[in-house]
Amino acid sequence: MKLAVDAMGGDNAPESIVKGCKAALNTFNDLELILIGKEAEITKYIEPSERVRLIHTEEVIEADDSPVRAVRRKKAASMVLAVQQVKAGLADAAVSAGNTGALMTAGLLSVGRMKGIERPALSPMLPTLDGAGFLLLDVGANMDAKPSHLFQYALMGSVYMQKVLNVAKPRIGLLNVGTEAGKGTELTKEVYTLLENSSLEFVGNVEARDLLNGVADVVVCDGFSGNLVLKSIEGTALALFSVLKKELTSSFINKLAAGILKPAFKQVKLQMDYSEYGGAGLFGLNAPVIKAHGSSDERAFFNAIRQARTMHEEQVVITIQQEIAKNTEAKEQE
Amino acid sequence: MKLAVDAMGGDNAPESIVKGCKAALNTFNDLELILIGKEAEITKYIEPSERVRLIHTEEVIEADDSPVRAVRRKKAASMVLAVQQVKAGLADAAVSAGNTGALMTAGLLSVGRMKGIERPALSPMLPTLDGAGFLLLDVGANMDAKPSHLFQYALMGSVYMQKVLNVAKPRIGLLNVGTEAGKGTELTKEVYTLLENSSLEFVGNVEARDLLNGVADVVVCDGFSGNLVLKSIEGTALALFSVLKKELTSSFINKLAAGILKPAFKQVKLQMDYSEYGGAGLFGLNAPVIKAHGSSDERAFFNAIRQARTMHEEQVVITIQQEIAKNTEAKEQE
Repeated sequence: MKLAVDAMGGDNAPESIVKGCKAALNTFNDLELILIGKEAEITKYIEPSERVRLIHTEEVIEADDSPVRAVRRKKAASMVLAVQQVKAGLADAAVSAGNTGALMTAGLLSVGRMKGIERPALSPMLPTLDGAGFLLLDVGANMDAKPSHLFQYALMGSVYMQKVLNVAKPRIGLLNVGTEAGKGTELTKEVYTLLENSSLEFVGNVEARDLLNGVADVVVCDGFSGNLVLKSIEGTALALFSVLKKELTSSFINKLAAGILKPAFKQVKLQMDYSEYGGAGLFGLNAPVIKAHGSSDERAFFNAIRQARTMHEEQVVITIQQEIAKNTEAKEQE
Repeated sequence: MKLAVDAMGGDNAPESIVKGCKAALNTFNDLELILIGKEAEITKYIEPSERVRLIHTEEVIEADDSPVRAVRRKKAASMVLAVQQVKAGLADAAVSAGNTGALMTAGLLSVGRMKGIERPALSPMLPTLDGAGFLLLDVGANMDAKPSHLFQYALMGSVYMQKVLNVAKPRIGLLNVGTEAGKGTELTKEVYTLLENSSLEFVGNVEARDLLNGVADVVVCDGFSGNLVLKSIEGTALALFSVLKKELTSSFINKLAAGILKPAFKQVKLQMDYSEYGGAGLFGLNAPVIKAHGSSDERAFFNAIRQARTMHEEQVVITIQQEIAKNTEAKEQE
């Protein structure tokens, strides 16, 4: 497969990005890459070859650029050129660790929304205590969501978990403030009815408190709520680790004991590290577009590439299209 | 002051509740309590006296009772009788560690909504890394909130932080998915404008990721979002502690080292323990009604009582009423 890579996106670009690419080239023999960015910087870590094409550009969208404006004005930005490779049929998928909003905008403009999909959804995998993880969508592509949007998120998430993570019957949960039916907002009440009457494996409402316990394989919500939950989880984990670090280094004896426990702490961090699952997919576009975490290291970016590759291999986009079409037909027959 | 206490609410009732009451009686000489619940169980831990009146009832609202139905049917439940003491003028405030939804329902029915307040808000204090904490409201009293509701939450929260926690100019933050103006939903955009044009110390949008870093003293949001954030923080902390515990007891040497670090871990837990700040106030009612955490121990319940007492002493309800009236007048003059 051919993958377009924004080599300049993320906190550790281009070094970690390009190193992740190299690892992926070594692992996947069928992989060909188009790396886009500042050539002089990229070639510090990789040489062009039959499997590695470089496209040079000076322009980069920064993390704090206003997404829509940046995509409009920086027409030669590495990220913009990456998704345009997909549009032009020169790449099967695109990956970037850059500005999330800009990637959503550029992806929507270039790769385009899938026929029948009302709104794309930004869909990261989050960790669970049992190591299986769950897909949360939407986490911010679409703020004022309607019931039909969330229903389509459930369809897309279900296909993804089946195809990419081999979950035979993905359990779909609806993010809510209580587990009983009838809880929540007007939105969640309507979505509950839609999911209950669908052929999906709907397990009902799930509470934010239980997400990390693996109560569902796919959790759907509006983009505002999903973003809050994602960032609350991140923020709490970071805060706890920072308090822990302070306390565990507050005396000589503590430092000694903490030193012994270092491998254990590492294990804990690893269990909470969702970059192991890859990046956040922008579901509902005509090709896989993956947003790797902004702080991606080599390993995290490798995982995002692997994810894009699996989505392509397993024809996730085509399957989603078929499911959406089936569903639309079923509705029209009603 | 006179305080009505639901002695049967919470996981550790009545023992921890009554012991918390005893500690409060020892600390606050002006405090008189009305304890409501099963007399035989309560008197195991406290004797009636000039300052302690008992009201016996067999009926209890359970944690998993449906709130509205429970309040309607269990008319003699300890929680219902507690708020009725306030309605009847026999108590200045009420505290319960029982079913949150039921307490909101009973509080609204008995104590009543303050004139001018459109919706009450459930308002817990959450911990921050600097130890100051912040007030989050609403976390679930009102699901489909309107801009004016959030504006009133900001007013109420500001008064509370001034009066009870002596913050001269409480910084008001609007919970959102990004810090820039114009972020978020239709709701947050409208609230942003309202707060920006108010006399409150509005610090703009705050992200869920930064909440524990103390970016604001008061954070306002709709009840659905607030509930998700609250439970995400709780769930993540619990999950992390559970993974930590597993890893730190996975070998003999780990157990030894973890034993040395026990005081440090305790300190971390204490820093994340929001029961130190008291319970969640049900703001917007005609008297202080405090929901202590369901898992309250003696100390947590003591803190909830102290909070109810301070709210009464500092005339928080009256001040909120004045602020709301001022604001309504100002609007009418526009």
